[in-house]
Amino acid sequence: MTLLERRDTNAVAHLTMNAPERLNALSDEMLAALQNEFDTLKDDTSIRAITLSGSGKAFCAGHDLKQMTAGRQSEDGGRDYFADLFNRCATMMQTIQQLPQPVIAQVHGIATAAGCQLVATCDMAVAAKGTRFGVNGVNIGLFCSTPMVALTRNIPRKQAFEMLTTGQFIDATRAETLGLINRVVPEENLQSETTQLAETIAQKLSAAVKIGKQTFYEQLQMPLNQAYAHAGSVMVENMLYAQTEAGIEAFLNKQTPTWDQ
Amino acid sequence: MTLLERRDTNAVAHLTMNAPERLNALSDEMLAALQNEFDTLKDDTSIRAITLSGSGKAFCAGHDLKQMTAGRQSEDGGRDYFADLFNRCATMMQTIQQLPQPVIAQVHGIATAAGCQLVATCDMAVAAKGTRFGVNGVNIGLFCSTPMVALTRNIPRKQAFEMLTTGQFIDATRAETLGLINRVVPEENLQSETTQLAETIAQKLSAAVKIGKQTFYEQLQMPLNQAYAHAGSVMVENMLYAQTEAGIEAFLNKQTPTWDQ
Amino acid sequence: MTLLERRDTNAVAHLTMNAPERLNALSDEMLAALQNEFDTLKDDTSIRAITLSGSGKAFCAGHDLKQMTAGRQSEDGGRDYFADLFNRCATMMQTIQQLPQPVIAQVHGIATAAGCQLVATCDMAVAAKGTRFGVNGVNIGLFCSTPMVALTRNIPRKQAFEMLTTGQFIDATRAETLGLINRVVPEENLQSETTQLAETIAQKLSAAVKIGKQTFYEQLQMPLNQAYAHAGSVMVENMLYAQTEAGIEAFLNKQTPTWDQ
Repeated sequence: MTLLERRDTNAVAHLTMNAPERLNALSDEMLAALQNEFDTLKDDTSIRAITLSGSGKAFCAGHDLKQMTAGRQSEDGGRDYFADLFNRCATMMQTIQQLPQPVIAQVHGIATAAGCQLVATCDMAVAAKGTRFGVNGVNIGLFCSTPMVALTRNIPRKQAFEMLTTGQFIDATRAETLGLINRVVPEENLQSETTQLAETIAQKLSAAVKIGKQTFYEQLQMPLNQAYAHAGSVMVENMLYAQTEAGIEAFLNKQTPTWDQ
Repeated sequence: MTLLERRDTNAVAHLTMNAPERLNALSDEMLAALQNEFDTLKDDTSIRAITLSGSGKAFCAGHDLKQMTAGRQSEDGGRDYFADLFNRCATMMQTIQQLPQPVIAQVHGIATAAGCQLVATCDMAVAAKGTRFGVNGVNIGLFCSTPMVALTRNIPRKQAFEMLTTGQFIDATRAETLGLINRVVPEENLQSETTQLAETIAQKLSAAVKIGKQTFYEQLQMPLNQAYAHAGSVMVENMLYAQTEAGIEAFLNKQTPTWDQ
Repeated sequence: MTLLERRDTNAVAHLTMNAPERLNALSDEMLAALQNEFDTLKDDTSIRAITLSGSGKAFCAGHDLKQMTAGRQSEDGGRDYFADLFNRCATMMQTIQQLPQPVIAQVHGIATAAGCQLVATCDMAVAAKGTRFGVNGVNIGLFCSTPMVALTRNIPRKQAFEMLTTGQFIDATRAETLGLINRVVPEENLQSETTQLAETIAQKLSAAVKIGKQTFYEQLQMPLNQAYAHAGSVMVENMLYAQTEAGIEAFLNKQTPTWDQ
C-alpha cells in the first residue's frame, strides 16, 4: 500500500492520498509523495486531467501535528524545520496551479486547515453532501495563515475572516454558495461525478487547456491592460495551432471537432 | 440597415448590434462600428447612459470565425491579423470602461466567447430569462483567453475555471447568482427594464457619475492606502462642483435635487 | 452622555456611536472619538474583540452634511477642509483593519454612504433583519468614491457599480448574499448574536488572532508567491509561541486548549 495511489483512466490520473489512520495529514512523506507525483505528471502528455481524493473517513485534516511537535526537539526549537515545512507545502500547492492539467479535488468527510487549503488550491472541487470545511487552527492557537492565502482567493473576505477567526466549520452547501467548491453531490456519486468532470476536460485539446490554465492564474495578478496584452498574445499562438485550425474548420462545417492527442 | 443602430431617448443612447444572420459576431466591421460609436459618445455630453443589445436571436456569439479563418491566407498564416484583431477587440472592451457614461448590456438568447466577454465588460447587465452564457472556445480548441480577462473580474475563480475548461453554458439565473449580470427579467420586459435602469442613472449628476465610474476601475487596481488617497482627492473635487453644492443644499432643505444638465 | 460610549464585557469592548439625533453621522467630533478610542484599544491587551453599534434609529448615515456645508465658508471654498476630512476618515477606516483585535459591526436601521463604508471596513458584520444599506451620495450629486473603496473589496463589481450609480438601497438579506455582511438576525437578537460572535473570538489565543488579522489584509494585496512566503514566515513564528505549543499538545492529548491571557 503506497502513501499516494495513482490509477489512470481515459487520460485522467486519479490520485488518492492513502493514510486514513492519520486522516491523510500532509506529513513530510505525504507532501513529498504529492510533489513527486505532480512533478512526474507535469511532463506526462498522456494525462489531460487529474483528480485528487483521500481514502478513509476524510479528504485531508491538514498538517501532521504529531510530526510537527516532534520537530520541536532540535536546538532551534523547530524553527528551521517549520520554515522548511511551510515552504515545501507552499511549493506543492503552487505546483498544482502550475501543472498543465486541471486538477479537481474530490472531497468527502472533512477538509480542514491545510486540507481546506488543498481544496481551495485545486482548480476545481466536487464535494460529497455533508462534507465539512474549516480553517480551524485558531482553536489550538495556530492561525491558519498559509491556508488563508488560498482561501481568500476563493471566497469573499468577510466570510473568510469569520472562518479563520472563529474556527467554525461550514458544510458543503455553504462552501458551494461561497465559491470554495464547484458542486455538491450525493456521496455515492462523488467519484463518478468527479470523474465525469475530469473526462469532459480530458476530451478538450490539451494544448489549449494548458496555455489557458497557465494564463488563467497569470492574468489574474495583472492590471487590466497588461492582462489583455498577455491574453491576446496567448490567443494568437492558440489560433496558429494546426489542431485549433482543424477544430474551427470542423465547427464551420457543422461537425464536432475531435483531436488525435 | 446599419451594422450598429443607435436610438436616443431621454439622455440614453440605445445601441443595437445588427448582424442577426451572424449572431452579431464581433467581425472587423462590428468592432470598428462599436469603437467608432463609443469614441463619438465619449464626447457627447447629451448622453448620460448607454445600453447595448443585439438584434435577432442572440446578443452576441463572439468573434467571426469565418472571417478569422479567411485571415489565415496571408503569408504569416494570419499571425499579424490575429494579433491586430485581438488588440482591436481589447481596445474596444477597455473603451467601454473608459467611457464617462455607464454602459448596460441588454442580453438575450446567447452570449458566448467574446460575446460573454462583452457582457462581463459592460458596467452592468440585464438579461432575459433563458439567456445562456458560455466561454466555449475550448470546444473547438481555442481557449477563451481574452474573454477570461473580463470574466474572472466578475465571478469567483473556481466557477470561471469550470466554464472555461468545460465549455459548458450557464443560464441567466446562475449568471446572476455568480455576479456576471445584475438581474434576470422576463424577455418581454427586457427592453423596458434595461431602459429604466439606464434612465435612472441618466437622471443623476453626470459629472459625478463620470468621475465615479472612472475612479471605480482605477481604485480597484490599487493597494488600499493608494485607493483611499485617490478616491479622497476625487471626492474633494466632487464637493466643489457648484451642482453638488446645490444638490446637498436641496437635500438639507428636504427638497429633491434636480440638475440642469 | 459621551459621543462614543464604551462598555467592556468578557474581554470584548462594545463601542456605541451616540449621536442619534444626527443618525450617528461621522462628524469631525465622531471621527475623532472613533480614532481616539481605536488608538487606545490598539494597546489594550485586555480587549480581544470589539463590536461597533449605533444608538437610536440608525447605525450610521455617513458624513455630516451640515458640518461639511459650513466648511464651504472658508476662502478656498472648503477645499482644504474637505481634503483633511476625507483623509481623517480614511485613516480611521484603515485603523480598524490595523487593530490587533477583530472589529464586528452591529448594524440596524440604515447604513448609508460612509456608514455603509464603515460596515464594509469592519472585519465582520451582523445586521438586524430590515436593515438597509446604500451608497447613495449620487442622489445628491456626490458620488460615494471613498465608500466605494471599501465596498468593492467586499462585493462583486457589477453589484457594487449598480449600488453606486443608482443610489438604491439593498436590504440585509441581499447584503448577506453579496458578502457585505456575515449574517442577518432578528432585531431582538442583534446584540446577543454579535456579542456571542465577539466572545467566541475573544476566547482564542489573542497573539494568534493578532498576527492572523494583520497577515489577512497584507497577503490579500500580494502576488501568490509573495503571499505564501509572507504567510509561511508568520506561521513559523506562531508555531514558536509557548501558548501555541501548549495548545497543540492539549489537542494531541484530546484536551480542549485554554489560555491564561
